[in-house]
Amino acid sequence: MRHTAVLLISCPDQKGLVAAIADFLLAHDANILHADQHQDAELKLFLMRVEWDLAGFDLDLADFGAAFAPIAERFGMSWRLAESSRKPRMAVFVSKFDHCLADLLYRYQSGELHCELPIILSNHEDTRWLAEAYRVPYQHLAVSKDTKHEAEQVQLAILRNQKIDFIVLARYMQVLSPEFIRHYPNRILNIHHSFLPAFHGAKPYHRAFERGVKLIGATAHYVTETLDDGPIIEQDVARISHRDSLDDLIKKGADLEKVVLSRAVKWHLDNRVLVYANKTVVFD
Amino acid sequence: MRHTAVLLISCPDQKGLVAAIADFLLAHDANILHADQHQDAELKLFLMRVEWDLAGFDLDLADFGAAFAPIAERFGMSWRLAESSRKPRMAVFVSKFDHCLADLLYRYQSGELHCELPIILSNHEDTRWLAEAYRVPYQHLAVSKDTKHEAEQVQLAILRNQKIDFIVLARYMQVLSPEFIRHYPNRILNIHHSFLPAFHGAKPYHRAFERGVKLIGATAHYVTETLDDGPIIEQDVARISHRDSLDDLIKKGADLEKVVLSRAVKWHLDNRVLVYANKTVVFD
Amino acid sequence: MRHTAVLLISCPDQKGLVAAIADFLLAHDANILHADQHQDAELKLFLMRVEWDLAGFDLDLADFGAAFAPIAERFGMSWRLAESSRKPRMAVFVSKFDHCLADLLYRYQSGELHCELPIILSNHEDTRWLAEAYRVPYQHLAVSKDTKHEAEQVQLAILRNQKIDFIVLARYMQVLSPEFIRHYPNRILNIHHSFLPAFHGAKPYHRAFERGVKLIGATAHYVTETLDDGPIIEQDVARISHRDSLDDLIKKGADLEKVVLSRAVKWHLDNRVLVYANKTVVFD
Amino acid sequence: MRHTAVLLISCPDQKGLVAAIADFLLAHDANILHADQHQDAELKLFLMRVEWDLAGFDLDLADFGAAFAPIAERFGMSWRLAESSRKPRMAVFVSKFDHCLADLLYRYQSGELHCELPIILSNHEDTRWLAEAYRVPYQHLAVSKDTKHEAEQVQLAILRNQKIDFIVLARYMQVLSPEFIRHYPNRILNIHHSFLPAFHGAKPYHRAFERGVKLIGATAHYVTETLDDGPIIEQDVARISHRDSLDDLIKKGADLEKVVLSRAVKWHLDNRVLVYANKTVVFD
Repeated sequence: MRHTAVLLISCPDQKGLVAAIADFLLAHDANILHADQHQDAELKLFLMRVEWDLAGFDLDLADFGAAFAPIAERFGMSWRLAESSRKPRMAVFVSKFDHCLADLLYRYQSGELHCELPIILSNHEDTRWLAEAYRVPYQHLAVSKDTKHEAEQVQLAILRNQKIDFIVLARYMQVLSPEFIRHYPNRILNIHHSFLPAFHGAKPYHRAFERGVKLIGATAHYVTETLDDGPIIEQDVARISHRDSLDDLIKKGADLEKVVLSRAVKWHLDNRVLVYANKTVVFD
Repeated sequence: MRHTAVLLISCPDQKGLVAAIADFLLAHDANILHADQHQDAELKLFLMRVEWDLAGFDLDLADFGAAFAPIAERFGMSWRLAESSRKPRMAVFVSKFDHCLADLLYRYQSGELHCELPIILSNHEDTRWLAEAYRVPYQHLAVSKDTKHEAEQVQLAILRNQKIDFIVLARYMQVLSPEFIRHYPNRILNIHHSFLPAFHGAKPYHRAFERGVKLIGATAHYVTETLDDGPIIEQDVARISHRDSLDDLIKKGADLEKVVLSRAVKWHLDNRVLVYANKTVVFD
Repeated sequence: MRHTAVLLISCPDQKGLVAAIADFLLAHDANILHADQHQDAELKLFLMRVEWDLAGFDLDLADFGAAFAPIAERFGMSWRLAESSRKPRMAVFVSKFDHCLADLLYRYQSGELHCELPIILSNHEDTRWLAEAYRVPYQHLAVSKDTKHEAEQVQLAILRNQKIDFIVLARYMQVLSPEFIRHYPNRILNIHHSFLPAFHGAKPYHRAFERGVKLIGATAHYVTETLDDGPIIEQDVARISHRDSLDDLIKKGADLEKVVLSRAVKWHLDNRVLVYANKTVVFD
Repeated sequence: MRHTAVLLISCPDQKGLVAAIADFLLAHDANILHADQHQDAELKLFLMRVEWDLAGFDLDLADFGAAFAPIAERFGMSWRLAESSRKPRMAVFVSKFDHCLADLLYRYQSGELHCELPIILSNHEDTRWLAEAYRVPYQHLAVSKDTKHEAEQVQLAILRNQKIDFIVLARYMQVLSPEFIRHYPNRILNIHHSFLPAFHGAKPYHRAFERGVKLIGATAHYVTETLDDGPIIEQDVARISHRDSLDDLIKKGADLEKVVLSRAVKWHLDNRVLVYANKTVVFD
């Protein structure tokens, strides 16, 4: 495994941006491995992801901010730097459905997800066996209408304590409060079991079955304060027919949910996702 | 080309149905080519499509109704009989966008659509050249808010005059009145340029672009009195990314619209589509 | 869960077949839940799958063969009867890659695969931990060129001993001998990591990468004596681009392999697959 | 429509490349609209596509070569410059099947294909009516085994005469000679009616039907001297089932062929395709 750095940039589009960044990296002897950029013609925005090998890079990453500041200021950049050697710390929230959790655990264990997984939090005990099979700490915390606020305070304390970087809702059936969400802006990933914006809210498979659609979908998105309305990271669909019962939809949908959520988590971990205007750019 | 008959049946599910139908067809020496059935477990409905070779069939189709009546009555069947030798008569309604029209004309001309096409009706002149290239009669009829009722009366007269069996709205940008629709129940096919029920109504590509979806869709459905709410016949999607402008969405969507609409028209022509509970069964 | 029976039939196509079967089932008061048939026009073959509720069926399934024999003989049928109450016994063969095994184990444990799984056989120890996590017996048996014949004899003894009905090769990297295969005709399912017949044989991802294809595939098929040439049960593909390294192909392919293999296993378990002319009919 | 320039570059990967290009463009006041690059880690190759607005660009494109030469030499670049204001001149070769031709003609006429189409060449008369409907010159040239060499000489003369930039084989059923191909390296696009490398050569649908595949495919590629072996530009697949006859495969395949070929032609026209190592990079 190479030791690399990823720089994510967004700023108003303007002449000289790419030259300034390329010159800066060259001046410090960066060996660029991947570079990708996007210009939103309508909003006049420039977004970039550049990854370079840290072998030979002559700048200590602790000094990167200070060295890059003149360029960032000149172009009005928002930027973020990530090092491949540092594994982000992920928490998974789950309720009773275990298919997404099982999928994430397998990918985590196999090394496909380049992260730490110090804690699984659940409002049920049903999926504890899976956590134990994969030897990941599991904490049960009952949540009811009345105890939700207190439960969230406990959850937040655990997350802080575990130095969690981002949260994956793996079919977690509780709606998080705006206050909770504000602690992790664009750092809570949810899987919704429909092709959003169709069937946002409760029981999407029931409503898809009722409506007689010919494809079902799943959507991974960042959680915002408006339910099922956050920036979409990934979507996919599967074909169904009149022969499929509601139960078949739920089963076929589970396979979609797993793969859509895991793609979103991987891209998030690879620092490929940039959010703007309630949309995402996913650099591939 | 074989000369065949297709029988479409729907009725409450009950024992003895298949035996009764099979015995009836055998008694008249039918050589069954395809048979397909569907049982809706929830609604306790039985739906069937059976196609047989008319060579050797010992019943004149003119007498079919009388001969089949005892079975139909015993099981409370709705049924419909179609002969492959009779080509249904299709009318196409179109506005300014011509991609679906061009596609239908090519398929019609090549014999892929087994129908007559005696008339194309449009509220614009833009697509006349295409009709002329394919030598299909084209009639222009301006429609405005004020003249809509009268225009529909003229349209209905033309359709009656031409003995039209069903209508295809090939990106026709006018909303038909409930009165008009009642003349052609489950016989008006529309293509909507979104993955319904997402983005029903106006400007779906604009709204899809705004929302930042990762797939766009198209939906062919029968027109009912509620806009974009009729039984869905076919849907499909195409992947897009942040690199796609609104204009790219419209272009990629056009290819989807063509293929989704043409599939729906073919299935309708092949008597493969049965409507129940605002859904369709598409026998393949 | 209903207690049902499934009858699978194949025979030369001829008049009166459906009537004879429907009359027989009606005579014994069968409540048909699903029926599907296929006629191969070219080969003049008739294939059928019919499933009925055993509640109310007045024939003991032990007597089915004798009662059905006159019809079977009259039409020259091959047929097979399966009862939903009897869970088939599956063995899984695996080598070092564990993604398909992990997927099958999860689906087995969740009840999605309606079968028993008394044994996992492997020529490596690498995946034992997964079997243990899911509490499924695991047996290691080293296989080399020289010991292959003996190893197969041991494997066959274990399979006999465990009364195995069918075998799933979940990325098992050994080629089975024709002699072994003859013990389980159309009862060994393999997943090949390409879109067959493209890239049959070894290292398909390497060759796909080399060739510069734009989609990769996976194929589930029954194993026959000719390598990668058996009847195809299911295939699917995923889009790749020039940005995907060989390693990306392998990872994206793993997700395909899992879903394609698990669909094939489910259909096999549901008695939906009929083999003829080195092809399959998959009744949906 | 903006007046833009596209620069395509390929060279050995090395430090300073991006900075050199970006600095050069900035020095001439280029307003970059899109930039995309790819690094092949294995072959240590750098490939880039950059598009800028010519409004404000202070270098006459006639002088571009001379101005860019020092950079090109320093890094050992192969490069190509294209101007959006110059429409490439396309020739279409066709035989009897007309679906791809009809599709290309519609897209050409609607402005979707940004090119000139001065000539359609065919070894049959069957598709002349389509050319006439779209008012595109059509020339018939019979080709037989014996006259092939002479026919190609005539074809080459016509192409030269018409200043043709690239050729699209829209289901042209003759194999072009290596000599002919050498005149248009990576400038002859072919549509093959299978998912290459599966079923290369003759009658792919027949062989797909025979093999019992569950998906059919189509492949657009550049023509090289080895049949069906050139760099793949685009591929796509469609699902089929046992219910599909050979004729159904051919019909479903036709829809695939149209869309795959038209995507490839559009990308070629947009200067998005770079060939290396018998593969393509398609910059999106």
